[in-house]
Amino acid sequence: MTNIYATIERPTLLLDAVRAQRNIARMALKAQRNRLRFRPHFKTHQSAEVGEWFRAVGVTAITVSSMTMANYFAAHGWDDITVAFPVNLREIAAINALAARVRLHLLVENMAAVDFLATRLTAPVAIWIEVDAGYRRSGVAWDDGAALTAVADRVAACDRMQFQGLLTHDGGTYAARTHAAIADAYATTVQRLNQARRVLAVHGFQGVELSIGDTPACSVLDDFGSVDEMRPGNFVFYDWMQVEIGSCTWEDVAVTVACPVVAIHPERNDVILYGGAVHLSKESLRRADDSPSFGAVVYLEEDGWSAPLPGAWVRSVSQEHGIVHADDATFAALSSRIQVGGLLGVMPVHSCLTADLLKRYLTLDGATLTMAPFPNSMSSQLVASG
Amino acid sequence: MTNIYATIERPTLLLDAVRAQRNIARMALKAQRNRLRFRPHFKTHQSAEVGEWFRAVGVTAITVSSMTMANYFAAHGWDDITVAFPVNLREIAAINALAARVRLHLLVENMAAVDFLATRLTAPVAIWIEVDAGYRRSGVAWDDGAALTAVADRVAACDRMQFQGLLTHDGGTYAARTHAAIADAYATTVQRLNQARRVLAVHGFQGVELSIGDTPACSVLDDFGSVDEMRPGNFVFYDWMQVEIGSCTWEDVAVTVACPVVAIHPERNDVILYGGAVHLSKESLRRADDSPSFGAVVYLEEDGWSAPLPGAWVRSVSQEHGIVHADDATFAALSSRIQVGGLLGVMPVHSCLTADLLKRYLTLDGATLTMAPFPNSMSSQLVASG
Repeated sequence: MTNIYATIERPTLLLDAVRAQRNIARMALKAQRNRLRFRPHFKTHQSAEVGEWFRAVGVTAITVSSMTMANYFAAHGWDDITVAFPVNLREIAAINALAARVRLHLLVENMAAVDFLATRLTAPVAIWIEVDAGYRRSGVAWDDGAALTAVADRVAACDRMQFQGLLTHDGGTYAARTHAAIADAYATTVQRLNQARRVLAVHGFQGVELSIGDTPACSVLDDFGSVDEMRPGNFVFYDWMQVEIGSCTWEDVAVTVACPVVAIHPERNDVILYGGAVHLSKESLRRADDSPSFGAVVYLEEDGWSAPLPGAWVRSVSQEHGIVHADDATFAALSSRIQVGGLLGVMPVHSCLTADLLKRYLTLDGATLTMAPFPNSMSSQLVASG
Repeated sequence: MTNIYATIERPTLLLDAVRAQRNIARMALKAQRNRLRFRPHFKTHQSAEVGEWFRAVGVTAITVSSMTMANYFAAHGWDDITVAFPVNLREIAAINALAARVRLHLLVENMAAVDFLATRLTAPVAIWIEVDAGYRRSGVAWDDGAALTAVADRVAACDRMQFQGLLTHDGGTYAARTHAAIADAYATTVQRLNQARRVLAVHGFQGVELSIGDTPACSVLDDFGSVDEMRPGNFVFYDWMQVEIGSCTWEDVAVTVACPVVAIHPERNDVILYGGAVHLSKESLRRADDSPSFGAVVYLEEDGWSAPLPGAWVRSVSQEHGIVHADDATFAALSSRIQVGGLLGVMPVHSCLTADLLKRYLTLDGATLTMAPFPNSMSSQLVASG
């Protein structure tokens, strides 16, 4: 182990900067080859320093999921920002303040929001209509032409709103487990977006852009069809869920949580870690026998971490505890390499949530990278002035 | 709605101080009647201000789940603190620093930890042996007399360690759904703890205390048998899980998340909230049809919030989105009372995790209460000096 491990006292999010930068470069190149605008989602890393790695490959436009993040990244020099969440009308003051300073893109998906913005906006914003292409989270249903044209007409009638295009998040690819299934889901989504665009074209709207953004499709596809913008986010770090989906290999995963070992129980093949729900999150995947896994288990090594151990997983988490369980052979190997007071690595199921909880990164060469410093409930104005 | 709602822009944790103080007073009285030391667990609220409500009813000893929290509460005048988590040897510097200032109680459950402490402690600490009474998280197995006596002997041989007693967390009561099931689980736990104490007594240890602590048992039982200390934590706020277990009624639940409504979808009986996994956590309960619920749905009212709506629940959460689903009748009522840009309340499944995410409280009379301000990965030394 290198020196960085000796300094670790508590659950700590390790970041392999080489891998993250490789993930960024690969996706930027793919966007360029497809002549797509690359507008990466920064909700995964939430870090000004990591943002600079994107700037280094030419990224100028970004996506975030809250006004808090938009203000944070604006304060770090980003001036073309999409808030990819149905506009929260209660933040109109923060929206107007930021729209006066940067090119701010908002999502709308209902007339109530558009009507409100039409009367309350004091600065120009770019508007995307969020389309629900089948995921059933938020968005105008892709086949509801009447709603799409009504919202687009209302946007077009307001000087302060510049209609940009149709945007979707295809959460359906997260259920896929093969490249073919991801490609099928993506093809369906793009076909539906194009149908919605045709409805708007018939209605008189020309030059309507399409924006897509899920990490599985952006990772495994080479041809994106007739879309204009990609907004993947998770790919910067990936995680155990993306390995399971097939978006990446474990060698692409750029984050792992170093957890202190506090107990070892050979009588039940369990290792108890300091690293629980407030560090890893309660996100889980189902194992083959339908039991949950809250993370993959790795050894920490001099230059990062090992491959996930096939016979070990985090079987449960409570507030501070994580319990690793292992089959007999794996436990025998594990218990010969670790001890109480040592460290064991957990590759998180969902890196976005783990990063949001741990709020900072320790790179393998010992640097600490910070994240948006304010808690989730802080008002966006306070962040803006911070 | 009172004025406090007008100020809310983002997902905000509402705290009904009257309910929380009533919960505190009731538990303090119960401990007093049973002649138990009341050492409440502060990991749920993590707030210096809420801690003062406990001090007001005579509490002088507390429980926390990390050295970070121990340092935070020590900085706020608490000087008798149990860290109810298997001692993390990597924090020995913080342990020694705090043990020099306050009466610090640590948990041990293996010889490796006791051996380490014996050579590295520089100040006196109280030691509890954590007993696994059947929950299979951490602790010496209750029926492993050889391990119990070996650990106790090693503790007794070290001047800096003062052996205090046996401590357990009975997570098994969380699976109960009736008072009788909670009482049965508790009786088994106490019987096992007493058996472990008898083994130690035969071995020569007298005056060994017993400490128990789960909220379900502490809430519903009136007679605690032969134990010396209770450490419940969640009861200060309770939550939807505790209502389901039967520990309390919804009128005892002292926290609810006010979430901005960003979309309403009558075609599928869904309401989309700004309030997702980074606000509520991904903790869920299983509904009768085995589908998950990530929270109960309440109306915000002038003096707090309504009863949970029987026909509505949070059906899914992603990073920032919460999706409320309702049956037809409930959706009809719901959509007549809320609108895009308004607020809807979510009673969290697990208040400990929600509070940890939101990091501050808004009381119903408009005060903001703060929590331990540092993120989960911060080193405890930095907190101590903060």
